[in-house]
Amino acid sequence: MAAPSGLEVLEAIRDGTGPPVGVAELLGMSVVELEEGRVVFGTRTAPAFGNPLGTLHGGITATLLDSAIGCAVQSALPAGVGYTTLDLNVTYLPAVALHGADLRAEGRVVHLGGRVATAEGRLAVGGSDRPVATATCTCLVLRP
Amino acid sequence: MAAPSGLEVLEAIRDGTGPPVGVAELLGMSVVELEEGRVVFGTRTAPAFGNPLGTLHGGITATLLDSAIGCAVQSALPAGVGYTTLDLNVTYLPAVALHGADLRAEGRVVHLGGRVATAEGRLAVGGSDRPVATATCTCLVLRP
Amino acid sequence: MAAPSGLEVLEAIRDGTGPPVGVAELLGMSVVELEEGRVVFGTRTAPAFGNPLGTLHGGITATLLDSAIGCAVQSALPAGVGYTTLDLNVTYLPAVALHGADLRAEGRVVHLGGRVATAEGRLAVGGSDRPVATATCTCLVLRP
Amino acid sequence: MAAPSGLEVLEAIRDGTGPPVGVAELLGMSVVELEEGRVVFGTRTAPAFGNPLGTLHGGITATLLDSAIGCAVQSALPAGVGYTTLDLNVTYLPAVALHGADLRAEGRVVHLGGRVATAEGRLAVGGSDRPVATATCTCLVLRP
Repeated sequence: MAAPSGLEVLEAIRDGTGPPVGVAELLGMSVVELEEGRVVFGTRTAPAFGNPLGTLHGGITATLLDSAIGCAVQSALPAGVGYTTLDLNVTYLPAVALHGADLRAEGRVVHLGGRVATAEGRLAVGGSDRPVATATCTCLVLRP
Repeated sequence: MAAPSGLEVLEAIRDGTGPPVGVAELLGMSVVELEEGRVVFGTRTAPAFGNPLGTLHGGITATLLDSAIGCAVQSALPAGVGYTTLDLNVTYLPAVALHGADLRAEGRVVHLGGRVATAEGRLAVGGSDRPVATATCTCLVLRP
Repeated sequence: MAAPSGLEVLEAIRDGTGPPVGVAELLGMSVVELEEGRVVFGTRTAPAFGNPLGTLHGGITATLLDSAIGCAVQSALPAGVGYTTLDLNVTYLPAVALHGADLRAEGRVVHLGGRVATAEGRLAVGGSDRPVATATCTCLVLRP
Repeated sequence: MAAPSGLEVLEAIRDGTGPPVGVAELLGMSVVELEEGRVVFGTRTAPAFGNPLGTLHGGITATLLDSAIGCAVQSALPAGVGYTTLDLNVTYLPAVALHGADLRAEGRVVHLGGRVATAEGRLAVGGSDRPVATATCTCLVLRP
């Protein structure tokens, strides 16, 4: 059987036919949109995501954005090509409450080169278009 | 009763006499060292922290570093002064396995000014001194 | 006379009716497009912009992007409101030669809040649409 | 003749026996300290380094830090191994005046791996130990 492309690996995760992913289960996070070069993860805010101030912990924001951005890069890679994230830069805009609102983290590839890929992401809450956080990352592309 | 300083708030969290913190419980994360301007958080790797590759998810790394760095800033603030994180930049070095090793995230204040504070952090595994990730952040200082 | 808005200050710089700006003269850099929330700076590559490898020095890239992004924020501020850049994150894509090509750095506001603004930018060469570098920044907004 | 190591290339630049470097001449910037894994560049503030507010342009800060950090990585590389900077993150602390003070940008390697190196830097003014800006970068290491 041929090795799957990055998009096929992510389709299996989305469809629940791949192996379980620890963090996805921990945060109740799932793939809600998926195409080559663009991935959206969704979950719902919960008290377990809180910082000491009782708002959304910046690390949860980072986890959602890291997932969306990294998988956006993965979704654009052919079979047999891997990647690893080198840097994640997250910018936090307003604080986010924990009242069970939907979180939507979108990642999108900006540049896919021979050795390096970059991508960007945005996190929005409850159907709004205005981001509550944005992020960029740089990935190393691992060709055989 | 006088309002507590940032350090006193964190001492209460460390000692379990403050309110529970959602993310700390979710990740089994606790304050293991604490002084003014410097905080260390510890936890233990687990399958629930995994990415699809079966190594430590970059978002968990970011959560530990964001906690350590943000609390380092908080630990240096007098009573009545708040803060909010504007940016978190994480750099990932080697991939980290999930075999129950201790994770140690240290945050340290670099600059504390009137309106802005910066801090840096490093994550190490299993007693090693070599970081597996480093981070910097910029915080807004909210004076009354 | 009323104090000028950020856009009016930049219009004066573009039109040469404001005071000279040191770095703009040093790099032969000028405002080539300007509207509220969006600014484009242009200049031309030259041997004086070279690094030891003989390609465009990353600091020149950073200077063009910092100018475009910072001025994009400034262009959206009303009279009497200032700003200061807290962080600049630059991502470098391919190396750029020094053969007299046009450089075009575009900055665009992403978020303008009460205390904080964020913006993003991209640098392109010689009329191409593909960026050779991207950047994000976070600014503190200084209201009277 | 054997190819020079990264440190030997930088020694030649420091001693003026290598080819001239465009940006170093443009900014009057020179190598003032150099050892394996650590480089300090110096120059002097001047009106030509000014932003529209009449203080040090963030791009000049970025150029000094990018030079120091990149060369710190280069200084640790053996003969025949190259590098390219992927990301530069600069954090600005207080604004800097342009009155002819000495600027000192120090870069230091944090991690040197097989494919990736990271380094950090700080910019200080006039002999002070307190940084006016800090930076981190990630570089791709290009082995033959």
